[in-house]
Amino acid sequence: MKKIRAAIVGYGNIGKYTLEALQESADFEIAGIVRRNGAENKPAELADYEVVKDIKELKDVDVAILATPTRSVEKYAKEILALGINTVDSFDIHTQIVELRRSLSQAAKAGNAVSIISAGWDPGSDSIVRTLMQSLAPKGVSYTNFGPGRSMGHSVAVRAIEGVRDALSVTIPVGTGIHRRMVYVELEDGVDFATVAAAIKADPYFVNDETHVTQVPCVKDLNDVGHGVNLVRKGVSGKTHNQLFEFNMKINNPALTAQVLVNVARASMKQQPGCYTMIEIPVIDMLPGDREELIGHLV
Amino acid sequence: MKKIRAAIVGYGNIGKYTLEALQESADFEIAGIVRRNGAENKPAELADYEVVKDIKELKDVDVAILATPTRSVEKYAKEILALGINTVDSFDIHTQIVELRRSLSQAAKAGNAVSIISAGWDPGSDSIVRTLMQSLAPKGVSYTNFGPGRSMGHSVAVRAIEGVRDALSVTIPVGTGIHRRMVYVELEDGVDFATVAAAIKADPYFVNDETHVTQVPCVKDLNDVGHGVNLVRKGVSGKTHNQLFEFNMKINNPALTAQVLVNVARASMKQQPGCYTMIEIPVIDMLPGDREELIGHLV
Repeated sequence: MKKIRAAIVGYGNIGKYTLEALQESADFEIAGIVRRNGAENKPAELADYEVVKDIKELKDVDVAILATPTRSVEKYAKEILALGINTVDSFDIHTQIVELRRSLSQAAKAGNAVSIISAGWDPGSDSIVRTLMQSLAPKGVSYTNFGPGRSMGHSVAVRAIEGVRDALSVTIPVGTGIHRRMVYVELEDGVDFATVAAAIKADPYFVNDETHVTQVPCVKDLNDVGHGVNLVRKGVSGKTHNQLFEFNMKINNPALTAQVLVNVARASMKQQPGCYTMIEIPVIDMLPGDREELIGHLV
Repeated sequence: MKKIRAAIVGYGNIGKYTLEALQESADFEIAGIVRRNGAENKPAELADYEVVKDIKELKDVDVAILATPTRSVEKYAKEILALGINTVDSFDIHTQIVELRRSLSQAAKAGNAVSIISAGWDPGSDSIVRTLMQSLAPKGVSYTNFGPGRSMGHSVAVRAIEGVRDALSVTIPVGTGIHRRMVYVELEDGVDFATVAAAIKADPYFVNDETHVTQVPCVKDLNDVGHGVNLVRKGVSGKTHNQLFEFNMKINNPALTAQVLVNVARASMKQQPGCYTMIEIPVIDMLPGDREELIGHLV
């Protein structure tokens, strides 16, 4: 059986976990890693792999797994799709997904390739569960409750405040889609904590949420990539009310994102040219193995 | 926008809930109901609908929703697919799904139609969640815990025991896929309870489970169509262990089954000729409405 040749584009946190997920997937072969510095100062774990600056230097790539920052996904995806190589990404700006899908749909069809976008856990696997729950009880309300876990966007917003050396904002779910923000700050010397705390609470990222700010000597000591979600829906199936659905997970965030990226890389090999979100892909396509055997033990 | 014309085939418990689900779905039109007695003794709620003995008497049917007993699904589906009409069913004998899919795949392709099988909640929506969880943590163990709720198979097994007038077996989840059986029996006059209780506990349906038997004056008074599921997986994403996933629901059983049948009836209009289980269908196809709008608010 021919293996799927995947390239990892970008070698930060998600790129490293993607390497691990690929190493554990027997149906994949690692075509190489694309990083800004190429083979210069190659990390030890990449010793056995081709590490290059440009994906064109790699041979016979079937699919590129974009482990780049969200904001550069579109640019990289377009270039790579034009080469006839599939792309997958975990683009996570919820409000711009439809637009990205339109743009990459054109690029994918032009390159006779497949792009699967916004494939992480939210957007991503949670989107599948949300869609399924919506279908099971078409009338009703769903809530997505995140955490406990680090919010990158909120942490970055705090770091931008004057006098803050480092910061961590942890999202705590309090139910019905409402979140508490636990903010840990490491301050520059001589900075007044009360002033910084007030600035954080007044920031647009925090002004509408219950926010608690704590000063700590070293933010790095608090780092934990665990995260969670609690997705609930109460609604109506047909004319029958009070149908209750709930999905929970407690996970290592980058490890799960990387696993989803590998899953959709596999699924990309089974789709027609075009751009897809995860809710547009049959879940069976994300798994390796014989179709009838999978149906026999999972359905 | 042209509505999907659906026929309900079989008008028992699931058929009645299917009628309700169709009445609440603006994108559907009810082509009619097929039942053994046709229009004879037509129930009041069917006054406005065509009720016939044979689906051929109905006009322009796009999809037939089979609300018949599981064992007659294959026969009806084959006949209806041959007419070029899509079929959906909630065939629930897990060990025979692959076989049914093969048989109806041929029939569907020959009729240039689509069949979606085993579309209830288990098999059905649970299958999607199980497949998704398997993909998120490829190594690990999943457990499907059912209940509390009535088990039809177990209740029927008890009714077959001599001296039993009526019986109800309730499935209680005790975790890790193990279930307790709470059996309620109504006995014929003069029958010894201890003898019946011993016979139940020795029955193949019960011999491996913790089983409690209680005598009651009237089993009908205990009837409740509520049911539940708790689906859990603990496993490994890439090389990262201890990833935890859980799906719970508490639902009216026939109402949810009927809603799923209507959802896949809708999805059947968007597939290529052939036979599919629910894990082979993109979840978005089960929802009405504009694709980009759905992606915008669900992904």
